[in-house]
Amino acid sequence: MDDTGPVRARPGSTTEVVAVRVTSGLVTHHPDTVAVEEPLEVRVDGEIVAVTMRTPGSDADLALGFLFAEGMIGGAGDVGSVAHCGRPGEEGYGNVIDVHSAGGHRIDPERVLEGRRWSTTSSACGVCGRRSIDGLLERCAPVGEAPAVAPEEILLDMARLAQLQPVFARTGGLHAAAAFAAGGALLASAEDVGRHNAVDKVVGALLRGGIVGGAPGTGAAVLAVSGRTSFEIVQKAATAHIPVVSGVSAPSSLAVELARATGIALCGFVRGDRLNVYTHAERVVGAAAPAP
Amino acid sequence: MDDTGPVRARPGSTTEVVAVRVTSGLVTHHPDTVAVEEPLEVRVDGEIVAVTMRTPGSDADLALGFLFAEGMIGGAGDVGSVAHCGRPGEEGYGNVIDVHSAGGHRIDPERVLEGRRWSTTSSACGVCGRRSIDGLLERCAPVGEAPAVAPEEILLDMARLAQLQPVFARTGGLHAAAAFAAGGALLASAEDVGRHNAVDKVVGALLRGGIVGGAPGTGAAVLAVSGRTSFEIVQKAATAHIPVVSGVSAPSSLAVELARATGIALCGFVRGDRLNVYTHAERVVGAAAPAP
Repeated sequence: MDDTGPVRARPGSTTEVVAVRVTSGLVTHHPDTVAVEEPLEVRVDGEIVAVTMRTPGSDADLALGFLFAEGMIGGAGDVGSVAHCGRPGEEGYGNVIDVHSAGGHRIDPERVLEGRRWSTTSSACGVCGRRSIDGLLERCAPVGEAPAVAPEEILLDMARLAQLQPVFARTGGLHAAAAFAAGGALLASAEDVGRHNAVDKVVGALLRGGIVGGAPGTGAAVLAVSGRTSFEIVQKAATAHIPVVSGVSAPSSLAVELARATGIALCGFVRGDRLNVYTHAERVVGAAAPAP
Repeated sequence: MDDTGPVRARPGSTTEVVAVRVTSGLVTHHPDTVAVEEPLEVRVDGEIVAVTMRTPGSDADLALGFLFAEGMIGGAGDVGSVAHCGRPGEEGYGNVIDVHSAGGHRIDPERVLEGRRWSTTSSACGVCGRRSIDGLLERCAPVGEAPAVAPEEILLDMARLAQLQPVFARTGGLHAAAAFAAGGALLASAEDVGRHNAVDKVVGALLRGGIVGGAPGTGAAVLAVSGRTSFEIVQKAATAHIPVVSGVSAPSSLAVELARATGIALCGFVRGDRLNVYTHAERVVGAAAPAP
């Protein structure tokens, strides 16, 4: 793989532009920094399976995490190699990534398409909407047992995430995500214009490090994200067996439903000295106690 | 169509949950309101073309706007009917929407798939990344001539958008988008957990109202969005011939590139009494003047 080590912003993740600033009618020109957004084409054994808009950097992790979340691979062991197509220095180098199956294994791209089209045209009308939701919830297995985490630790993890956002600080244009072990050790972090990409990069780094799928309590304890928590964020956490998902902003209704179904403690508005726990409060030390 | 009139939040766009709040170790329980996120399956003449996570409401507009942005339909005239599948009151009603071709026309779902797979496996390696970007830029035609807009008007439109966010005020969980005519008349607005969905709903409402594709200056003058501006937001604006895109937060690099290529004035950090113009400042009154 061509992308290793802790996942941090690269020089190529921002670019300079000139902005015209209008303040109360006064016009000034000044340089500004914006987050880079470029298409990444993901190929599996030569076949295009996805094109996603992302911020360059940690592309191998992004590809691994994406394929894992989509159910195409069960772990890093299914993958023989991940590498950008072409040669460094060529124009456009870095925007196509080739994933090759491990020897003796064949990654099946059709599983992606099935996963995306979870409903079928033969579903009875009317019921199929609810059936789609139930199907979505059933695709995710419960995360299993793990030690409870103190609210202070969840707050510290989030404070740490903010420090890990060098590009956001310059551009205001990126989402961040990070995975922490119980006790607060940073396992992986990433920034991206796409919230889902940031989480895919983190999960990909965990897969590469062999931190997913071990004994209970040995994996990531907390997934922290810089924005809102949607269904897909919780789905990616559930697939990676991460028992606590922590967001700076609000969760969606389906994020709450999925967290409840998979045993995840979903925390929102995690800021300063306080947080909300929407599901499985027993995973957060003290939060399951009755209100005074 | 089953969704008409100005696009506003519906009662079903939020739901009540109980949150456990932990503040400096003190635990309290209180009701909380979260934004609803549910899957919408879009079918064209019986075939599933997309499943998107969205906030229920204005689904017909969402379907129209999505099909238009993907290039599957050239306008509302290609569509004979749009209606939710099933009967109101049935479980899950509202999460599947059927689009039927107009008489004498056949909407081709394959155009969606082609549009999504804009690169091909036969592209020369290395160059294909850049080629993908050029391909993306070439898919969008310039927006054409339109009267310049005063910065004060862009700021007022954004202030108006904030007032149009009833659900965000309650949940902190939704994006908003709105289209304004020159002079500030509100043409359409929408909220959604997905930024792109909010814009699709707005464009769908414009299509339904016959406000897209008329003589220069007769369509929407400004598209305002509550968050960051990405490639896809600008792409949807370009397809709907909207000459000014205005965001509360930062643009991405590819949003800037596409706005430059299509003649759109891309404004960011539009807040209070100031804004940044990243491209085509000649469309913003006074902004093209040299700095003092």
